[in-house]
Amino acid sequence: MSFRNKLYQIIFEAETVEGKLFDVILLWSIIFSVIIVCLESVKAYKLTYGNVFFYLEWIFTILFSIEYIIRIYAVEKPLKYIFSFYGLVDLFSIVPSFFSLYFHGAQSLLVIRAIRLLRVFRLFKLTRFMGESDVLFKALKSSRFKITVFLICVMTIALTSGALMYLIEGPESSFSSIPKGVYWSIVTMTTVGYGDIVPQTDLGKALASFLMIAGYGIIAVPTGIVSVEIAKVSNAQNTRTCKNCLIEGHRNEAKYCWSCGAKLA
Amino acid sequence: MSFRNKLYQIIFEAETVEGKLFDVILLWSIIFSVIIVCLESVKAYKLTYGNVFFYLEWIFTILFSIEYIIRIYAVEKPLKYIFSFYGLVDLFSIVPSFFSLYFHGAQSLLVIRAIRLLRVFRLFKLTRFMGESDVLFKALKSSRFKITVFLICVMTIALTSGALMYLIEGPESSFSSIPKGVYWSIVTMTTVGYGDIVPQTDLGKALASFLMIAGYGIIAVPTGIVSVEIAKVSNAQNTRTCKNCLIEGHRNEAKYCWSCGAKLA
Amino acid sequence: MSFRNKLYQIIFEAETVEGKLFDVILLWSIIFSVIIVCLESVKAYKLTYGNVFFYLEWIFTILFSIEYIIRIYAVEKPLKYIFSFYGLVDLFSIVPSFFSLYFHGAQSLLVIRAIRLLRVFRLFKLTRFMGESDVLFKALKSSRFKITVFLICVMTIALTSGALMYLIEGPESSFSSIPKGVYWSIVTMTTVGYGDIVPQTDLGKALASFLMIAGYGIIAVPTGIVSVEIAKVSNAQNTRTCKNCLIEGHRNEAKYCWSCGAKLA
Amino acid sequence: MSFRNKLYQIIFEAETVEGKLFDVILLWSIIFSVIIVCLESVKAYKLTYGNVFFYLEWIFTILFSIEYIIRIYAVEKPLKYIFSFYGLVDLFSIVPSFFSLYFHGAQSLLVIRAIRLLRVFRLFKLTRFMGESDVLFKALKSSRFKITVFLICVMTIALTSGALMYLIEGPESSFSSIPKGVYWSIVTMTTVGYGDIVPQTDLGKALASFLMIAGYGIIAVPTGIVSVEIAKVSNAQNTRTCKNCLIEGHRNEAKYCWSCGAKLA
Repeated sequence: MSFRNKLYQIIFEAETVEGKLFDVILLWSIIFSVIIVCLESVKAYKLTYGNVFFYLEWIFTILFSIEYIIRIYAVEKPLKYIFSFYGLVDLFSIVPSFFSLYFHGAQSLLVIRAIRLLRVFRLFKLTRFMGESDVLFKALKSSRFKITVFLICVMTIALTSGALMYLIEGPESSFSSIPKGVYWSIVTMTTVGYGDIVPQTDLGKALASFLMIAGYGIIAVPTGIVSVEIAKVSNAQNTRTCKNCLIEGHRNEAKYCWSCGAKLA
Repeated sequence: MSFRNKLYQIIFEAETVEGKLFDVILLWSIIFSVIIVCLESVKAYKLTYGNVFFYLEWIFTILFSIEYIIRIYAVEKPLKYIFSFYGLVDLFSIVPSFFSLYFHGAQSLLVIRAIRLLRVFRLFKLTRFMGESDVLFKALKSSRFKITVFLICVMTIALTSGALMYLIEGPESSFSSIPKGVYWSIVTMTTVGYGDIVPQTDLGKALASFLMIAGYGIIAVPTGIVSVEIAKVSNAQNTRTCKNCLIEGHRNEAKYCWSCGAKLA
Repeated sequence: MSFRNKLYQIIFEAETVEGKLFDVILLWSIIFSVIIVCLESVKAYKLTYGNVFFYLEWIFTILFSIEYIIRIYAVEKPLKYIFSFYGLVDLFSIVPSFFSLYFHGAQSLLVIRAIRLLRVFRLFKLTRFMGESDVLFKALKSSRFKITVFLICVMTIALTSGALMYLIEGPESSFSSIPKGVYWSIVTMTTVGYGDIVPQTDLGKALASFLMIAGYGIIAVPTGIVSVEIAKVSNAQNTRTCKNCLIEGHRNEAKYCWSCGAKLA
Repeated sequence: MSFRNKLYQIIFEAETVEGKLFDVILLWSIIFSVIIVCLESVKAYKLTYGNVFFYLEWIFTILFSIEYIIRIYAVEKPLKYIFSFYGLVDLFSIVPSFFSLYFHGAQSLLVIRAIRLLRVFRLFKLTRFMGESDVLFKALKSSRFKITVFLICVMTIALTSGALMYLIEGPESSFSSIPKGVYWSIVTMTTVGYGDIVPQTDLGKALASFLMIAGYGIIAVPTGIVSVEIAKVSNAQNTRTCKNCLIEGHRNEAKYCWSCGAKLA
């Protein structure tokens, strides 16, 4: 196996010991570097530990840059990698630091480095979580049309009730425009309920009560959709077929068919 | 096929290429015109772009008016259409604009145009969402009696606890009347929790805690109802058709048709 | 049939035409009288319509009193009825009005009349809702032990985290005692989130974040319990057994067994 | 049976009458002593009933100390017990009281005594709740990997959107650092919605609306996971025992044991 193939196996796969070790080191580097980005944004910490943050950040930037270059070198089709989702995330994880060297105003862009946390998702290939995350993503994927229909209904209700509240409470209240009414509707229907915009009139409170109770039914819908899909995917995954009577629905640890008593393969 | 039938097919159905094209154009017109209604309600935008909004709005109003007239012309029973749900929504989508020409005070009625978003629901006939929205609406329909029972219970609990809080906190607190107490109960039980009305006394806080924990169980009920119904409808939809009587809704493991007793393939 | 039996049938049952009529009149009387109790608690309304409320309330009180006396007369074991749940609710629905005649301070007790809304539950015997409310109450009943275990866990977590917050935020903050901390925990875990008590320190915010995310898992538990129970009760109700092969799981409208093709009874 | 064995049976088991009695007394002692800890933290109560609290607390401390010593004496491997979870909880339930005698600053540590409530969990061995709590804990245990995957996703979304809000609202707003943004994200996504930190800019409100609606789907995931697991565990528990190999977990319609292939009765 060539050196390039070897590199590919270590960086992009997790079957070998080196591959797993690389993934674990990468995982902790990402987490640690993201924590630094977070702490750096706190003024008090920046004043005291500004220098430490600066040097640590550059260490991680250089490490991630080297990793990025090796990835391009190791992969068979570099362009495809560069413009893939993870390729772009990898790039945006390091670019802001270099930018901030040349442009003074680019300081605020440093926050973008926080998206390097998204790189963690790549590590779901780590064996143990493989099957579990699969069930979740399959369930979400197969329920995407139902959820789209649901979201269209929610948006329509939000807009209609937002416009109504604007009409009821009047433009002098905190519902000073329809978009604000829609924002309030969403805050209410999702049961978040900040309390920054709140109906003052009796009619407005009645409508709000109605919307909240309707929200009961509404919040039940996505839960129902996702539950049913998880149940389906989860059942499909756990099922073997009896070669004698072709029946399904065996337990994972079953040795004999529950219907005909034949030995299972 | 007569010209009227052709029109009917384009406007009311979505099987032909023209019908689909019409639906897509209508969908974007609705969305775009609703966005304008929303933005027009924001004072700052109205001052700057007032004229643009005015002309765009009239273009959409005239387009929707023409569409409304064609609909009446194309449909077989015009009166039935005019007094149907969608007929009324179509009418109320255009009427406020004409009203605002003659009555100065009718300005505030312009908000009603936002209900033209409801016309979007007609477009669920678009093929892809057909089956999905069907499952959701069937599930909600078949759970309507259970949800009614549930809502009666919720309203009774809301009123009882609202009256109790009025008794406990007293008319000098922010719980100054029973309706306000009921409003607070609904805000609390639905876990919205604005925080505009909040118990101050220790006894009130204890009752509130009790209501919140009870709310756990309460919010679980509609979710359970809807989940079970979605699972049922979803299962019924996924199964095979009997070749003898063409009926659907067999269990996955069924060997014989439940309706005619014929052997299933 | 004696006059007393006839009365019993009308008041306590809903099979006859008169029985149904009585139930419907009673339902609307209860709702209307409760609305009056609510409106009377609003100061502005009381000042203007105080007299109307007073006379209407006495009409309902006298009607309900007559009904109460007839109930005692018609039932076979009056004492059993008087001390039953509904007997006490019926009594407390009328007693406060009579009390307020003799004791001036008893005015505030008038609120208790709001519990007459609980009488509505008796009307669930109305045919259509019978089966539906049955499923819900059976599901809640058969999940009561699981929900007890769940509530004990929730109370323990609430107390532990409330005490911790009291320790972290200190007695000078809005977390001025453990009971207040527990109140905050409950407000947070149930995702109500009033915002009247909010962590100020960084450590407090971290603990709050942890509790909220834990709340995700916690709120899922009762929903799961209730869903599973509703599914069970709902399935049990819908199931007939094939007399030929003894298999279950037929659809309500099935005429033939899905497993052996035999005609179902 | 030796005296030590007898003690072991009473304290650690609940089969005998004395064992059950001991458990019930212990349960109420724990609850009562925790209530005292709570009330003691309320200033007004401490000023008035400080002495009563002091004596009651010492009575419970001494009782629990005696119980702790007997537990060490009765158990076969004292060290294993002492360093077990419940052993440490038992120790921390009594230690703060003794500490407060010698160190004046240790007063605030008295709050730690609240963790003695955790001892209640030991009493789930009480027969009735055994099976029920088992179902819940098994369901939570078997869904732990899925929930881990879910929590990683949630944390990533929280951090990304928190950083974005910090960028949008700016360091002069109430989103003054990334950790504050993350705290806001968690408050919003879990639908707690305190309202202490709230977006002010239009772009911030739009992002918040998006996050809330996404939160719909997000909150549905753990509910779905737990529901499916409870359904599985609950089904597995409800079935029959094979008379040949005594194994459980058969499907309701199973005719043969899945483990040994013997015909089921």
